[in-house]
Amino acid sequence: MNTFGRIFRIHIFGESHGDSVGVIIDGCPPGIKIKVEDFDFDLSRRKSGAKGTTPRKENDIPKIISGLYNNFTTGSPVTILFKNADTHSSDYNFRTHPRPGHADFVADKKYNLFNDDRGGGHFSGRITVGLVAAGVIAKKIIKETSIKAKLTEAGGSKNISKTVDEAVKSGDSIGGIIECTVKNIPTGLGEPFFDSVESLISHAVFSIPGIKGIEFGSGFDAAKMTGTEHNDLIINNKGKTKTNNAGGINGGITNGNDIFFRVAVKPTSLQVFHYGKKHLILFPESRKI
Amino acid sequence: MNTFGRIFRIHIFGESHGDSVGVIIDGCPPGIKIKVEDFDFDLSRRKSGAKGTTPRKENDIPKIISGLYNNFTTGSPVTILFKNADTHSSDYNFRTHPRPGHADFVADKKYNLFNDDRGGGHFSGRITVGLVAAGVIAKKIIKETSIKAKLTEAGGSKNISKTVDEAVKSGDSIGGIIECTVKNIPTGLGEPFFDSVESLISHAVFSIPGIKGIEFGSGFDAAKMTGTEHNDLIINNKGKTKTNNAGGINGGITNGNDIFFRVAVKPTSLQVFHYGKKHLILFPESRKI
Amino acid sequence: MNTFGRIFRIHIFGESHGDSVGVIIDGCPPGIKIKVEDFDFDLSRRKSGAKGTTPRKENDIPKIISGLYNNFTTGSPVTILFKNADTHSSDYNFRTHPRPGHADFVADKKYNLFNDDRGGGHFSGRITVGLVAAGVIAKKIIKETSIKAKLTEAGGSKNISKTVDEAVKSGDSIGGIIECTVKNIPTGLGEPFFDSVESLISHAVFSIPGIKGIEFGSGFDAAKMTGTEHNDLIINNKGKTKTNNAGGINGGITNGNDIFFRVAVKPTSLQVFHYGKKHLILFPESRKI
Amino acid sequence: MNTFGRIFRIHIFGESHGDSVGVIIDGCPPGIKIKVEDFDFDLSRRKSGAKGTTPRKENDIPKIISGLYNNFTTGSPVTILFKNADTHSSDYNFRTHPRPGHADFVADKKYNLFNDDRGGGHFSGRITVGLVAAGVIAKKIIKETSIKAKLTEAGGSKNISKTVDEAVKSGDSIGGIIECTVKNIPTGLGEPFFDSVESLISHAVFSIPGIKGIEFGSGFDAAKMTGTEHNDLIINNKGKTKTNNAGGINGGITNGNDIFFRVAVKPTSLQVFHYGKKHLILFPESRKI
Repeated sequence: MNTFGRIFRIHIFGESHGDSVGVIIDGCPPGIKIKVEDFDFDLSRRKSGAKGTTPRKENDIPKIISGLYNNFTTGSPVTILFKNADTHSSDYNFRTHPRPGHADFVADKKYNLFNDDRGGGHFSGRITVGLVAAGVIAKKIIKETSIKAKLTEAGGSKNISKTVDEAVKSGDSIGGIIECTVKNIPTGLGEPFFDSVESLISHAVFSIPGIKGIEFGSGFDAAKMTGTEHNDLIINNKGKTKTNNAGGINGGITNGNDIFFRVAVKPTSLQVFHYGKKHLILFPESRKI
Repeated sequence: MNTFGRIFRIHIFGESHGDSVGVIIDGCPPGIKIKVEDFDFDLSRRKSGAKGTTPRKENDIPKIISGLYNNFTTGSPVTILFKNADTHSSDYNFRTHPRPGHADFVADKKYNLFNDDRGGGHFSGRITVGLVAAGVIAKKIIKETSIKAKLTEAGGSKNISKTVDEAVKSGDSIGGIIECTVKNIPTGLGEPFFDSVESLISHAVFSIPGIKGIEFGSGFDAAKMTGTEHNDLIINNKGKTKTNNAGGINGGITNGNDIFFRVAVKPTSLQVFHYGKKHLILFPESRKI
Repeated sequence: MNTFGRIFRIHIFGESHGDSVGVIIDGCPPGIKIKVEDFDFDLSRRKSGAKGTTPRKENDIPKIISGLYNNFTTGSPVTILFKNADTHSSDYNFRTHPRPGHADFVADKKYNLFNDDRGGGHFSGRITVGLVAAGVIAKKIIKETSIKAKLTEAGGSKNISKTVDEAVKSGDSIGGIIECTVKNIPTGLGEPFFDSVESLISHAVFSIPGIKGIEFGSGFDAAKMTGTEHNDLIINNKGKTKTNNAGGINGGITNGNDIFFRVAVKPTSLQVFHYGKKHLILFPESRKI
Repeated sequence: MNTFGRIFRIHIFGESHGDSVGVIIDGCPPGIKIKVEDFDFDLSRRKSGAKGTTPRKENDIPKIISGLYNNFTTGSPVTILFKNADTHSSDYNFRTHPRPGHADFVADKKYNLFNDDRGGGHFSGRITVGLVAAGVIAKKIIKETSIKAKLTEAGGSKNISKTVDEAVKSGDSIGGIIECTVKNIPTGLGEPFFDSVESLISHAVFSIPGIKGIEFGSGFDAAKMTGTEHNDLIINNKGKTKTNNAGGINGGITNGNDIFFRVAVKPTSLQVFHYGKKHLILFPESRKI
């Protein structure tokens, strides 16, 4: 299922080396003003090409083919395409030599070898460009709310620039920590159980390839605290708390304080094949139709 | 929304001090043999009354009022009720004195003071009894798969018994870590993005009150590792890997190795009211109808 | 799937001769005042026992076991149970002698003979008591809107009383037509395609056992009309139309005029077995586990 | 919501005079062989240009931009685009002069005048081209099943060719009846209540613009029959029945006999404006932002 959301509902599609990748946003309200340049800031933050990132170069120009009329959303589905341009197929054959840490092996199994294996196919991080585009529109709808995410740690160090330099030099990849703070969120969002705010945020966050952990508020540190230490005293009748160990969420519901969560990103799996002495050929067999 | 699942779909309901709590399981296949005693083991693991847990005592006898015929599931919805018996309403008034760390404040806001505030109402951990009952039936359907969860840390220590004793003595609460291992899971479950195995497990796990963090495989430690360290070498054509830093999941899909995840539980919020010098009365106002 | 609805979402359960039948309403807003006697009027319209209906007698007293507190809905799931009392199991064995026109045969096939076959099991019209109860609450939420349904034809005649008398005398069953008019419905409900008002109403209406046709506005007669005849002239800027051939729906969306639809109910399938000369025994075989 | 289906799930998008219309098929199994010419037969049946249909001319060449690799579906979402070419915007202004019988008025109200009003926008029959394309792929998956639909009546007459000629001459539009027969469908599909086969088929059929009625088996005629007349005798242990008044569905479930249903299509609403003496200007007001 490539769909997320109940009201503002997004559908993603595309493959790394196919014609295009993109997103449909269904349930987008009418009357949201959208220009192509509105996407620039967030798309450029996602963009490859910076030091230590994939060398793939894409212009990432969104083409909106439905749901927009005279620069306003119409209320019908907004479809945004991103053409794939820089699609040199790898010299490696991921089919016969699935890369450790990548989805090559599981994709071959799941899709009975019919999956598009060029550049990771539908598993590629390339597909997240549609998530970013949807986010740009979402933020226009809830414009009072501020959402800020930043990289706070790389390779276990807070000196990110230095650590990335070293990793580039060594030719290895490194993981990192991203922290996200959401301000000015209404009190009362979320549901007590299955649609707790933690459930919904973690569901979305783990959709991004490479994420392996998430914690809200004091998170894993909370497991070491006593109730007295952890309790966030309520100090006014808007629910403002003295501390924010809960990360802005009680009983699955936003409590009006900032939502805060941290995310662990694993080091990118390497493009080379280390199966010990020799290259392991895992899929000599053919499809079972 | 009190519903989870696509095929085996559960709906939970009830309040801490209401008539009953329970669960409907829709999509349960016909022909699963179920006896009341099948629930004993898992319900007793969940049960209160052990040292350091809530003193509430409930028999937790499941009453199956639909979907079962001659001890076999019929294919129609299985409804399981648990009568509430030990429901002494608190001397405290959570309405006017919302407890820090609890859902009292957010529930009052969200439901405009119409929520059942006795014992936490629909936010109570009591409602999880239906989750356990659904799990008992689920495990009968996927009987080759083994799912084991255990408490591995309490209050920051692995000497759980001693730490709990101390906490009981001090009258404070403590958090803990639960680890879960799933064995014999088919390769290829899950979806690349929104229905990644991490997304679905975390969605369900964060539905349990008090959970504030989750990590898969090496999780937050992965953020400190290099790609070379983190890579799980594939060592046979069933996808068995030498290490399991991925926690059994690549690209959101099960890879045939054990699924492994760790969960952070915050210390239970205290039943007393610490608003500094005096008790803060937060809801003198009446409902807005 | 025994669930219907997006916002006000209902889950039904139960079997004809089981312990109880009932409904959960999830997404019911808090603050709706509900007393047990509120259900009387609609439940009595549904009730059996009138001339020409099933002789089964049930008190149909709703027991609300969750989601209600001090006579107001709380915002958490409302669970309503109806105890089954009059459950004399039939002398006939529907398992070996599936009745023509009933679901006996398909249920045995679908559920591999594990279905509860007493009185039709989960296929029984008895389960609709939960739909009526949910409707009572729904109508309290949209109280400006009036929904009236009535039987306008029985056995092909508008003289219903006489036709029913004759059918009772002959020991046969007859079909009928129900007409439904919805007044004071907001303009703009529904969606252009899959969630057109016609799609959603027909989806719900065909959930009721025995319905075999539905038509909106002039319906099947529209197929014989010209565009000039069928066109509903818009006569004011609230969208009021001179005629209502569209049944209050254009392009799948309510247009502010009355919604009008007609429904065809087939004659109840007979309880006796007519397989020609002899009784056909269809399920001598046992379950395939 | 522009989504239909649980397993094979389709999302439609586009506007009559926008860049493209299209469909995403999510949940399409891998390994289905697809060539562009496979769409020819069904697209040509839908195509405009025949006598009495809209004069719009489109090539309707499907462009598959995701989910296909080496002519086989990959298991990831299949996105199919149809470029709009013949998009002469009307001389009429549907905004200020909403056409009776069309969705112009309700669309303006629902979307607060932000909807694309050119040629009906997202309400246009043009959007059904994606439904046909999805149907082509669906039929490849269930290839044992035969689905045939045909026009059996136009303007109330079975002499369709003559009736259409007369309508063309008179410059008026006419309605019609379509009959659909589905053969070789497995026994046991569908659910007892909300997902009855009648519910699901009618939900999908009423998504097509212009449909105002549907009946299964003997349908509205069943309302005039007695139980003895309507009963379909089961004549063998595969559930074959002597008659098929049920249209292949009992208790919401397929019974192994042909599914049969009839659909009423209203006459196309006229493009001219008949508001009595003068043209009514309904939307002089501006948007409410």
